[in-house]
Amino acid sequence: MVEQLGVIGCGLMGGSFALALRQAGQVGRVVGYSRSPQARQQALTRGVIDVAANTVAEAVVGSDVVLVAVPVAATEATLREVTPHLKPQAWCMDVGSTKGDVVQAARRAMGARVSHFVPAHPIAGKELAGVEHADAQLYRGRLVVLTPQSDTSTSVTEQARALWSSVGGRVEVMSAQAHDSAFAAVSHLPHLLAFAYMKGLMEQAEGEEFLRLAGPGFRDFSRIAGSDSAVWRDILLGNSQAVLQQLTHFRDALDALASQVKAGDGAQLQRIIAEVAQKRRAWPSNPSDASSASSDE
Amino acid sequence: MVEQLGVIGCGLMGGSFALALRQAGQVGRVVGYSRSPQARQQALTRGVIDVAANTVAEAVVGSDVVLVAVPVAATEATLREVTPHLKPQAWCMDVGSTKGDVVQAARRAMGARVSHFVPAHPIAGKELAGVEHADAQLYRGRLVVLTPQSDTSTSVTEQARALWSSVGGRVEVMSAQAHDSAFAAVSHLPHLLAFAYMKGLMEQAEGEEFLRLAGPGFRDFSRIAGSDSAVWRDILLGNSQAVLQQLTHFRDALDALASQVKAGDGAQLQRIIAEVAQKRRAWPSNPSDASSASSDE
Repeated sequence: MVEQLGVIGCGLMGGSFALALRQAGQVGRVVGYSRSPQARQQALTRGVIDVAANTVAEAVVGSDVVLVAVPVAATEATLREVTPHLKPQAWCMDVGSTKGDVVQAARRAMGARVSHFVPAHPIAGKELAGVEHADAQLYRGRLVVLTPQSDTSTSVTEQARALWSSVGGRVEVMSAQAHDSAFAAVSHLPHLLAFAYMKGLMEQAEGEEFLRLAGPGFRDFSRIAGSDSAVWRDILLGNSQAVLQQLTHFRDALDALASQVKAGDGAQLQRIIAEVAQKRRAWPSNPSDASSASSDE
Repeated sequence: MVEQLGVIGCGLMGGSFALALRQAGQVGRVVGYSRSPQARQQALTRGVIDVAANTVAEAVVGSDVVLVAVPVAATEATLREVTPHLKPQAWCMDVGSTKGDVVQAARRAMGARVSHFVPAHPIAGKELAGVEHADAQLYRGRLVVLTPQSDTSTSVTEQARALWSSVGGRVEVMSAQAHDSAFAAVSHLPHLLAFAYMKGLMEQAEGEEFLRLAGPGFRDFSRIAGSDSAVWRDILLGNSQAVLQQLTHFRDALDALASQVKAGDGAQLQRIIAEVAQKRRAWPSNPSDASSASSDE
């Protein structure tokens, strides 16, 4: 049970966490801050928060737990504002899609208090952002990855685990590096490829005519190319090393397939397609991993 | 009204066409041939065809229209068997996903009778192949591209248009080259990229662990990587020139994006993502193009 939760960034992610924690009976009071006064007011009107704070400090001062749910690129500046006002036993966590850069930002911003910061990545989201889409069920059944560091307080990590579990998340703990490699592979690279694919199409004079003929294969393959540009700029830059690493694997495989197409090597081509198709059809081993279309990742 | 329809290849595509034409009251009798005796028998038992032919010739001899619904790579050999038995006024068409190679195959196999061949590509299909999944509604509302050549009989092209319209298809006529470029762009290249992406993932020791963490973005982006290996070997080889041409556009765009990621050029990166995301969100201009998930293309 959290006496007071501070939410910095009362958007979809932060607002949904507040609603879910309240529904689970795990929070006494929620004090929320958003940079935009309208967003604050809307969160208050919708009952997502109990008190609208006028500054980050106001949302932190009396809070036992502080959730920082701002764009990843704003994490460091936000944590610099949070840290001086954190009560001695209070701790905070983020919800960013990249973890290595967040850990470094937290270390720079928080100094020794970084022991009370739990890097978190709930794999959930919606195509529609904003507190008006906040949903107490957003995290139910979804994977939540925590990447505590060697100097993160064990007790604080366990509290974070308990909170995410109480709102229905399936919590996994791994290193920030393992997290960033995995999500570069299964989320960030696919986004980069989908962006590049659409850009390649649009560079052609016949692009519009091509698009008119596109069907369901195109629809699914390119869906993630419609993602938010600020969010994905931050993710691709925040995790650039792992993304570029994944890109080399992709390019090697693409070069091999392209050579086979060029050479008319049907046997090799079919062998590889059969191999990857079998693997793809066997996914997911755990069906809940793919059961919801509500995440963009 | 077709007195007798011959179907060579009583699978999903051929069987669905026979069922649909019968439901539309546009066919008197259907004679079907499949290479596998079991497939023939099944088509008969299910009422997809009226007569099971033991040879291609038997299915062609008395037919006014012959639908060749075999894998693209088998088109030439099939048309060589069809041609000598075609009645003087009879004509035939295919359902292949590539058209330039089919046109060349038809020209080699049919000689002067190529005037009575209408290259056709109905953009429809299902993840499950075989006559047991044949469906009279398969072509309803779906795009059907016809690519008649300069020496294709105009009257025969109009008859093909009327038949596809009678089963609910939205018929468009274009050149084989325009067809192949467009489908290389919106279908064949995405498949090649999805295959390469999965292969790149599988080449890594951590691939299985990565896959375990994959979510809905991965699910949609990679769905087409689960496609049939023989079908896609034929498509990629049959349309290799246009596919490799599309690949250069993709690679140029990917190289540019990768450079921006590497250089940390957030402004350019965001500008391009915003541009492609807007384009993707605006698709489709005609919602019926994407309304069904029943096609793999």
